[in-house]
Amino acid sequence: MTFALKISIVAALVEQRLSDHLSGSRGPAPPPRRLAEAMRYAALGGGKRLRPFLMIETAGLFGVKTENALDAAAAIECVHCYSLVHDDLPAMDNDELRRGRPTVHIAFDEASAILAGDALLTLAFEIMARRQTHADPVVRSELVVGLARAAGWAGMAGGQMLDLEAEGKALKPEQIRYMQALKTGALIRFSCEAGGIIGGAGAKERAALSAYGDKLGQAFQLADDLLDTQGDPKKLGKKTRKDRGAGKATLVGAFGVEKARILLKDLEQDAIAALKPFGERAAALSEAAHFVTGREY
Amino acid sequence: MTFALKISIVAALVEQRLSDHLSGSRGPAPPPRRLAEAMRYAALGGGKRLRPFLMIETAGLFGVKTENALDAAAAIECVHCYSLVHDDLPAMDNDELRRGRPTVHIAFDEASAILAGDALLTLAFEIMARRQTHADPVVRSELVVGLARAAGWAGMAGGQMLDLEAEGKALKPEQIRYMQALKTGALIRFSCEAGGIIGGAGAKERAALSAYGDKLGQAFQLADDLLDTQGDPKKLGKKTRKDRGAGKATLVGAFGVEKARILLKDLEQDAIAALKPFGERAAALSEAAHFVTGREY
Repeated sequence: MTFALKISIVAALVEQRLSDHLSGSRGPAPPPRRLAEAMRYAALGGGKRLRPFLMIETAGLFGVKTENALDAAAAIECVHCYSLVHDDLPAMDNDELRRGRPTVHIAFDEASAILAGDALLTLAFEIMARRQTHADPVVRSELVVGLARAAGWAGMAGGQMLDLEAEGKALKPEQIRYMQALKTGALIRFSCEAGGIIGGAGAKERAALSAYGDKLGQAFQLADDLLDTQGDPKKLGKKTRKDRGAGKATLVGAFGVEKARILLKDLEQDAIAALKPFGERAAALSEAAHFVTGREY
Repeated sequence: MTFALKISIVAALVEQRLSDHLSGSRGPAPPPRRLAEAMRYAALGGGKRLRPFLMIETAGLFGVKTENALDAAAAIECVHCYSLVHDDLPAMDNDELRRGRPTVHIAFDEASAILAGDALLTLAFEIMARRQTHADPVVRSELVVGLARAAGWAGMAGGQMLDLEAEGKALKPEQIRYMQALKTGALIRFSCEAGGIIGGAGAKERAALSAYGDKLGQAFQLADDLLDTQGDPKKLGKKTRKDRGAGKATLVGAFGVEKARILLKDLEQDAIAALKPFGERAAALSEAAHFVTGREY
């Protein structure tokens, strides 16, 4: 099975599971229709589902079946989707296009986008803590704590804050790395760690997954920045050359395209090297590193 | 000990605990200073801390010491504070004053307010799921699920959506009740149920706590609407007469002040009646019902 086929199968399964979770609520009352529609618009119908793929593949290293990692993977994707909706808001990055469609605040309105993001973030934790997600409540609690740390003030939300503060400023490469480690790195790394949590990994295996997730997250962001500089807006489904226009700090800006490409290749190799303890079982994760650095969209 | 003293002691303890949680992060990296400041501004230095009080008192019915309910209570308050920050945003209720101080998006900026809200919501789930909050992971998971349902699309976020949609429309009383049950009712009710979860309450006791929380939540919102009509903006620390100006649907608008006052008294009595199974031990919760209906701020 090719890597492209593998990730598209996971994407289809995640899409279905997200759709199930978003088709009706388990809360005290039925959710308002407009909010449910905005949430479905934000979460369904697109995306590579890379984070769920990473979680499912890392869990698979420990014999966890896809079916038994799918809810946790869907929860991680809810957090990713929420962050896109809020990052796109006028007060943030002010983006009107995402995955080739109008962003949520354009398709609905600003208040709906804020609330849809809030509710997707909240739903992620509901899903993660449900008995159906994993039989062991210790595992569920650990997943909730890890997801919250990756998403919170010292993770994604913090990284977005640093990104906004950095606009128009010349950051040093280590400041850019720190910002990106929070903004995109934390959730990608957690997606890899989550497979270890759900799979009952030992300390050494967990460290290997963290190292892999860390390098992969850095590679992902660097590839993203390169795509913003050189990518095709039609393939990407969003505007390019935004970073420069917004005065955003990127490593491509700091180092130039050529050095950034070398750095990206190094990160890919480092990510693959971190998988060594898992041997051949980690082939799909090695391919994921290659996919992340080579992607055109 | 008077009720006023009891609730102010809990408020002081919650303030301290929130401050501890907001003084440094347990995440992958130190959080950005501006975001941490906005979160502290949003969560500290004010508020009656009614929801933590309800949780601590209901847990106390089952012999749970305040100290052992304080983290979960702080988590609930984080969710309450996040909701205020987001509800105050220009795209939502567009409020500039809260607890006598500029709202977060005025004191900081809109992006900081969105992110501070996001991060407080996320922190709530981190706190709730931590081992330190309760020894039993089943309890922690149940608390996370309950909090998420109260806060999510079929709870607070859904209620805020309905509230925004209702502006300028004439809602029927049952539609107003549904909207308020989600917007304010769900978290107040969960605060009462959470004490039962952490205290290992049986099914009958849980039902009693839910009934109490439900009536109390309704009373709280009705008192709030009456205060908006007739209250003193200086005591309240926020603008009054906003509902009418914004064309908001309230039961005071639907029934008039006199009938609303009678309804409020009924709700107080219903809330107190629901506490019957707990006898004298629930005295402080009875007083809370009286406090909620009689409050001037």
